[in-house]
Amino acid sequence: MPEEKIVSFRHLNEEERAAVDIAIVANPDPMDLARLPGLTWIHSLWAGVERLVSEIGDSTLPVVRLVDPQLSRTMAEAVLAWTYYLFRDMPAYARFQRERSWQQLPYRRPEQVTVGLLGLGALGEAAAHRLIDAGFKVIGWSRSAKDIGGIETHSGDDGLNAVLRRSDILVCLLPQTSETRALLNAERLALLPANASLINFARGPIVVSEDLLQALDTGRLSHAVLDVFDVEPLPADAPFWDHPRITVLPHISAPTDRETAAALVADNIRTFRRTATLPSIVDFARGY
Amino acid sequence: MPEEKIVSFRHLNEEERAAVDIAIVANPDPMDLARLPGLTWIHSLWAGVERLVSEIGDSTLPVVRLVDPQLSRTMAEAVLAWTYYLFRDMPAYARFQRERSWQQLPYRRPEQVTVGLLGLGALGEAAAHRLIDAGFKVIGWSRSAKDIGGIETHSGDDGLNAVLRRSDILVCLLPQTSETRALLNAERLALLPANASLINFARGPIVVSEDLLQALDTGRLSHAVLDVFDVEPLPADAPFWDHPRITVLPHISAPTDRETAAALVADNIRTFRRTATLPSIVDFARGY
Repeated sequence: MPEEKIVSFRHLNEEERAAVDIAIVANPDPMDLARLPGLTWIHSLWAGVERLVSEIGDSTLPVVRLVDPQLSRTMAEAVLAWTYYLFRDMPAYARFQRERSWQQLPYRRPEQVTVGLLGLGALGEAAAHRLIDAGFKVIGWSRSAKDIGGIETHSGDDGLNAVLRRSDILVCLLPQTSETRALLNAERLALLPANASLINFARGPIVVSEDLLQALDTGRLSHAVLDVFDVEPLPADAPFWDHPRITVLPHISAPTDRETAAALVADNIRTFRRTATLPSIVDFARGY
Repeated sequence: MPEEKIVSFRHLNEEERAAVDIAIVANPDPMDLARLPGLTWIHSLWAGVERLVSEIGDSTLPVVRLVDPQLSRTMAEAVLAWTYYLFRDMPAYARFQRERSWQQLPYRRPEQVTVGLLGLGALGEAAAHRLIDAGFKVIGWSRSAKDIGGIETHSGDDGLNAVLRRSDILVCLLPQTSETRALLNAERLALLPANASLINFARGPIVVSEDLLQALDTGRLSHAVLDVFDVEPLPADAPFWDHPRITVLPHISAPTDRETAAALVADNIRTFRRTATLPSIVDFARGY
């Protein structure tokens, strides 16, 4: 973008900071944003903006979050890949290999397994379609009622309980908001069918860690795949690392793609320069 | 099938054995088959019939092998599931978890990865379609030239070398025959790109074990997912069990589905009783 001056925040002196009108951020220190007095809007490179929302929540600055079709594709792929990981019993076969034990587990067809999707935004909808194409039964839940072809959708508290009761594999793709924080607590995890498993590709605080550990330890849940945590990087003394029923991933389910994200950000900035309009911005009350 | 008398071999006396005209078998002792003098044909419950072919090869008995669309679906699912396992770096992340190490590996999009399929029969074709739908570049090789929409296919010795040279992930679905035994030896494995990986869902003897171990030990190959072995169950002292670059599976990639296989066998027998014709039978010279 030769028509723009693009600079790294840390290389700016005070005069240069005053000239900045758009900030492109990943996970910024809100104090840094406060040092940009001429800022008119913020472009997040992340889809999840809960930290920005909570820390600059009283600001009037519009925030555009990344809604990248490539991100949806990669997240849908991750959901299918780790659903297969659980569905095809890869954790159990890894254990058998360590024990040098030749044991065949019964195979179930995907249509005999129900995957519950929490969150039916762009990521959830893309994941739903991949799972349906793979033959799974898919049911979904979102805060507000949604209609997605081919899947049974629910909303509201009763809807959540109905989805939990039937989800052999529960996949969390919810945004973190004041309403979803600690949503998956002991009471709600107890609604899952026996031997259900959990994939959390959303945000750590949506699942209550102690309640999850207890559900795994009592054998009520068979396995959890966790890509997100209350604190990241996950501290070396966290109990998740060596738990036999937990697969720890270092927040890699759907990394921002540099090429496609850069093109989207450039497009949004060009449109803003030309028309002074922004794409859909974050609703601070809703939280995403 | 009330019109048929269906009995277990081990419960038959000599007179009853003489009355048997069709044998339904999985992995039978050929001596047992020789004790059925009235046999007119054999129905295998397996898709792979290399043991039958080699051990009753001088017989004139027609052999029908299982070609079950459900088996093709399950095998294609297994190919996609374990391709994702390699593509999404699950073995590396499992190692990082054991080391309590938070390390993110770069993500490549599926269209940046080439999957080479050896074997383009019913299983290979179904797998090719699943891999293409998932966005991978797919190239295939088979003994005789085949045309499958959407994938580049090769045949013959030169074709095999061309496929090997470009396969980031090589998936073996070949039948075991005198031509495919020891096909993947040191020389051919050396043609794979650096850091390629291998999935063998076909038969153990198609890959030369010592050559595979050496390719893994020198770091030329990054990982192998093995579902089949020269001897099964895999002996407890086999070097595969605790090799860090090998995932051992106990021959579970595509188990025979009791429901769908039983229906197919019943259909084939009913058609035979009515019309005295058999579906496509095994070509003993070709080996499948």
